[in-house]
Amino acid sequence: MRPSKRQNDELRPVSLERGVSRHAEGSCLVKFGDTHVLCTASLEERVPGWLKNSGKGWVTAEYGMLPRATGERMKREAASGKQSGRTQEIQRLVARSLRAVVDLEALGERMITVDCDVIQADGGTRTASITGAFVALSDCLAWMETRGMVKRDKVLKDHVAAISCGIYKGTPVLDLDYPEDSAAGTDANFVLTGRGGIVEIQGTAEGEPFSRDELEALMKLAEKGIGELVAHQKSCLEA
Amino acid sequence: MRPSKRQNDELRPVSLERGVSRHAEGSCLVKFGDTHVLCTASLEERVPGWLKNSGKGWVTAEYGMLPRATGERMKREAASGKQSGRTQEIQRLVARSLRAVVDLEALGERMITVDCDVIQADGGTRTASITGAFVALSDCLAWMETRGMVKRDKVLKDHVAAISCGIYKGTPVLDLDYPEDSAAGTDANFVLTGRGGIVEIQGTAEGEPFSRDELEALMKLAEKGIGELVAHQKSCLEA
Amino acid sequence: MRPSKRQNDELRPVSLERGVSRHAEGSCLVKFGDTHVLCTASLEERVPGWLKNSGKGWVTAEYGMLPRATGERMKREAASGKQSGRTQEIQRLVARSLRAVVDLEALGERMITVDCDVIQADGGTRTASITGAFVALSDCLAWMETRGMVKRDKVLKDHVAAISCGIYKGTPVLDLDYPEDSAAGTDANFVLTGRGGIVEIQGTAEGEPFSRDELEALMKLAEKGIGELVAHQKSCLEA
Amino acid sequence: MRPSKRQNDELRPVSLERGVSRHAEGSCLVKFGDTHVLCTASLEERVPGWLKNSGKGWVTAEYGMLPRATGERMKREAASGKQSGRTQEIQRLVARSLRAVVDLEALGERMITVDCDVIQADGGTRTASITGAFVALSDCLAWMETRGMVKRDKVLKDHVAAISCGIYKGTPVLDLDYPEDSAAGTDANFVLTGRGGIVEIQGTAEGEPFSRDELEALMKLAEKGIGELVAHQKSCLEA
Amino acid sequence: MRPSKRQNDELRPVSLERGVSRHAEGSCLVKFGDTHVLCTASLEERVPGWLKNSGKGWVTAEYGMLPRATGERMKREAASGKQSGRTQEIQRLVARSLRAVVDLEALGERMITVDCDVIQADGGTRTASITGAFVALSDCLAWMETRGMVKRDKVLKDHVAAISCGIYKGTPVLDLDYPEDSAAGTDANFVLTGRGGIVEIQGTAEGEPFSRDELEALMKLAEKGIGELVAHQKSCLEA
Amino acid sequence: MRPSKRQNDELRPVSLERGVSRHAEGSCLVKFGDTHVLCTASLEERVPGWLKNSGKGWVTAEYGMLPRATGERMKREAASGKQSGRTQEIQRLVARSLRAVVDLEALGERMITVDCDVIQADGGTRTASITGAFVALSDCLAWMETRGMVKRDKVLKDHVAAISCGIYKGTPVLDLDYPEDSAAGTDANFVLTGRGGIVEIQGTAEGEPFSRDELEALMKLAEKGIGELVAHQKSCLEA
Repeated sequence: MRPSKRQNDELRPVSLERGVSRHAEGSCLVKFGDTHVLCTASLEERVPGWLKNSGKGWVTAEYGMLPRATGERMKREAASGKQSGRTQEIQRLVARSLRAVVDLEALGERMITVDCDVIQADGGTRTASITGAFVALSDCLAWMETRGMVKRDKVLKDHVAAISCGIYKGTPVLDLDYPEDSAAGTDANFVLTGRGGIVEIQGTAEGEPFSRDELEALMKLAEKGIGELVAHQKSCLEA
Repeated sequence: MRPSKRQNDELRPVSLERGVSRHAEGSCLVKFGDTHVLCTASLEERVPGWLKNSGKGWVTAEYGMLPRATGERMKREAASGKQSGRTQEIQRLVARSLRAVVDLEALGERMITVDCDVIQADGGTRTASITGAFVALSDCLAWMETRGMVKRDKVLKDHVAAISCGIYKGTPVLDLDYPEDSAAGTDANFVLTGRGGIVEIQGTAEGEPFSRDELEALMKLAEKGIGELVAHQKSCLEA
Repeated sequence: MRPSKRQNDELRPVSLERGVSRHAEGSCLVKFGDTHVLCTASLEERVPGWLKNSGKGWVTAEYGMLPRATGERMKREAASGKQSGRTQEIQRLVARSLRAVVDLEALGERMITVDCDVIQADGGTRTASITGAFVALSDCLAWMETRGMVKRDKVLKDHVAAISCGIYKGTPVLDLDYPEDSAAGTDANFVLTGRGGIVEIQGTAEGEPFSRDELEALMKLAEKGIGELVAHQKSCLEA
Repeated sequence: MRPSKRQNDELRPVSLERGVSRHAEGSCLVKFGDTHVLCTASLEERVPGWLKNSGKGWVTAEYGMLPRATGERMKREAASGKQSGRTQEIQRLVARSLRAVVDLEALGERMITVDCDVIQADGGTRTASITGAFVALSDCLAWMETRGMVKRDKVLKDHVAAISCGIYKGTPVLDLDYPEDSAAGTDANFVLTGRGGIVEIQGTAEGEPFSRDELEALMKLAEKGIGELVAHQKSCLEA
Repeated sequence: MRPSKRQNDELRPVSLERGVSRHAEGSCLVKFGDTHVLCTASLEERVPGWLKNSGKGWVTAEYGMLPRATGERMKREAASGKQSGRTQEIQRLVARSLRAVVDLEALGERMITVDCDVIQADGGTRTASITGAFVALSDCLAWMETRGMVKRDKVLKDHVAAISCGIYKGTPVLDLDYPEDSAAGTDANFVLTGRGGIVEIQGTAEGEPFSRDELEALMKLAEKGIGELVAHQKSCLEA
Repeated sequence: MRPSKRQNDELRPVSLERGVSRHAEGSCLVKFGDTHVLCTASLEERVPGWLKNSGKGWVTAEYGMLPRATGERMKREAASGKQSGRTQEIQRLVARSLRAVVDLEALGERMITVDCDVIQADGGTRTASITGAFVALSDCLAWMETRGMVKRDKVLKDHVAAISCGIYKGTPVLDLDYPEDSAAGTDANFVLTGRGGIVEIQGTAEGEPFSRDELEALMKLAEKGIGELVAHQKSCLEA
């Protein structure tokens, strides 16, 4: 029995709210249960140096947590003067995941930065970030389309969403919350496209190594969960 | 005529929402119009080194802005590796303002850190921060009171709130929003207690110097505005 | 009775010595009693990026203290790898104060940096810095005038000087020295122009809040003191 | 056909040389073809703060590249003042991989740091690092065993080694070198134990997403390759 | 002919002024011509960690230049966030030079930090720093002696002073000023004791290598110059 | 008797191995006994800003130690976020030494960076670095000559090599290893050209000052030792 009483293949309540920022070209407040992440997409008419005159644009991401997003207050990274290894890992993952579904040539020589700021954390902040960042990015491209800059559907090749799975008390379960994550023997994050292609898979044995069969079981859960997340994205974007 | 159509002595719509963080001992989402700041109060059972064995506690504050809280995306301070001078000024001001109404001996050897994170900015982020931080701090002390650690009313000697005033197109006005702030000739921030005592006053002439009469006019506006803010705090804390 | 036996409205002995640096375009060693600050103005034929091709120049300031300027040696900021919040606050204040009396268009596309380095501290280092920095800046402009670059009196619109006041043992007093500053209940810094306009006012209650009447009393002291400081500046610059 | 003429399931020539450092308690120079990594294990009689009086030890890792290990000289991280996100990701991966086969209680309250410094790079530096780090760690534990501090076989629960696989020109291949890595559509790193358990799997689609069948094919290659690497470790440690 | 018209073996006018800081336990403003360095010695009742319970004290030094000590303003090291390699070299040299004449056991478990801050530079700042730092250190020890903490003559084993020599237009000359230093082919700094022992010698060929005969000639000049500097120290300390 | 049984004027076994890096334009693994330094020379078609359009090139150097090159593991400089004063001193010395024998105009507007990374340390890492860096630089120039970019013999005006000498138990000895270095009263590093000119001399009294006669004795040892090192360089480069 999971602490949250969920079924093994059951997501937490998912909410995707668009247009939450007055300033950003695209934004989404994503909630996976008690994990809340504010995603904003910012457009700039410039590209990193190595892309100048390439005709290609760039999509990048940054990640942060408010100091008291967690059960114990964490040191503010701006005050300690550097981003942790964990922060850097996550923001690199979010950025790669988004670029996997973007046609950088169709974007043109522009840069979109998606900021994912965790307002409240209860496990799964990186997967919520990816799932919400896609919505913010999509809305940013829609904003650009209304100004004749791009065709959104030319730039976005597919949906992308992410979920974590893990082996909790010997059983594979979907969408770990913090109490499960702390206790899970194995923890894996999956990033899949709307058509089910694998963009990124990261599995880690916290204690005992896991087997190929277990990996297979986690993968199946992920496919189910991401299917639901993509459906959430679609209905939210159509609203 | 102000861009927002407000009267010269009219605050923006004010909202103070308590209990918005699942984890923090006290929290408040404060809105001054389109300026939204999340304030969380975190209790720790330790004090800075210079207070060890003094019998006194400490209250401090940190301030940050999400990168796209503003009209143009700003560089993330955690990524640039240091907090700006502006950020440091504001967090020092918030902390001093709170300590002005706290009896540190009654708090005992504990530290409360109030984080003020600007989710969306439209001018007046520091005054909204102080006003909301007081509510978060009060709720943190109430949380402690339910656990028999302190008496809130012994620790909190008074209310404290803050507002900006400025001279916009030659006329003193209350509670500058961003369009007014950008254009104002003089900008002053006032921090007052519930009983009307002055905790902090910071007035700056952006262009032409201002006169004692103008300062007087701004002070009067501030007293009116802060009276209303304290009333908001009281009704919110009683709710 | 003040520790220094001064009258309540009496400045410490003030000294402004020009031309103390062999290299700087303008320089002034300012002494407010035992507080000694070396101010040097450095001219550069460039402006910050955001002013390029604007026709306008820029005036900025930096502030530092020698490690043993104080009663106890302080860590060298260059060694600790960052400037404190206090240092940043002060250098921003000095720069704003100078710009309040400078016509940046008349300066042309050039930058003047005024360095204020505290050789010895006994309270009031920021107000001494502003007062001395004005003299260094004025001499830098005179240096430029002799080379046909600007007219000093076109660039400088007025004098600017600063003083602190505070409530010491219940009585408003002028120009706090360190023993008074440490004990004062309220501390306020005033930056005024030669014509008496207010450029900046910063008042802080260290313990009890203060009243509008007290603010008024401090303001009057400040006006008297700054009148005397401007007279010092004038006689020094005419010498 | 692979650029190196290798079979699709063929490792580069592997070399593991022990005892290459005069000072370290354990050391190994590992070569995967032209990728050369020096691994040293350093024992300290202390643990991180959160493990004090826990009875448990700790194993950690650091990773670096000499500036000219690569085709183009890279900026020295010590000179630029921080470790890149990539460096931090890799050293966290190496450390987790080692800890997966270590009984931290059997180690006792001691810390072993394994430094992996890339002398020359040609792709696969993280997998070579893990494979060589295990040998250095094993020798460090042997060094401790000769001094009666631990039993190596109590501390080390299994072997651990790592390899990369990828889809190069549409074909799954084992142990990517740099030319393959640069061109590969999908790149996955596998960390397995001697008994074949999965410790860590990280797969990334650089361009097109990949399928579950492709992941399966990469996994099979990895199992073959890691089997050979573990055999190399064994024969090297027995020598 | 030297630019300053000095004889080849002639020092610039030397001035050593004691007691220039109100706060420091010992202080000296040293002038070698237009090179002015403020040296302050600060006593602390603590030692670095590696000397705890050793019965020995420590003497260290820090060095800095005011930004406009030089002909062109230099970036403030506190603002750029680190000390340059040159600064670190010099402060290490000053500290070693002082320790060469100090009996650290006679000092007892205390630390003296000598800060050398260059107010104005015209070549030879490191040699002036050493020469003045000795006076500040000596006065700090005298301050301690009056409080019964040490015997100055037990702690100080000898005098120490320093001078630069160089080959300017083919001729060995004593005490290079900035114009000579910029043009000199060879530049050497000598640190000698009062009894003529060599504490430190650093010679560098800027262009052509130099010969042993030239080194010999520079050494002779240094011995003459340092003899005079030590005489200055003695008469200053007796005053 | 020296700990290593060497004669007083006897170098440790010297080895210079060229072409040890697959990527660098020139490289050399230098061994002075158990001190091993990997030197790589990297060519870039750019120069520092102050040399643009000067027609001159630049040669610079960087220095680092692997964390466990030493008896006790040292903190990784990339992790601590800055290079130590010692590191900076050494890399500045290596760079000056190389430039002493390079005709920067004959090099043309290009930059060569020589990285000296200490794989294993046993005293004398800076002198080994200089001696090996010369070989790497020479090979880089040979690489350029085969591409018609320069004439090596036009760019390199002479050989350069370095050795340490010291007074160990009262006796001047050549090429200190770590046990001698730790115990030596005086330690001097000499950098000489192939024709015997002095490029750099740095002598330090660790305890008692040394005399001119002792300096003379150390110089003689250095000349003998460097003569042998230059012979090693020549035979290595001819091989």
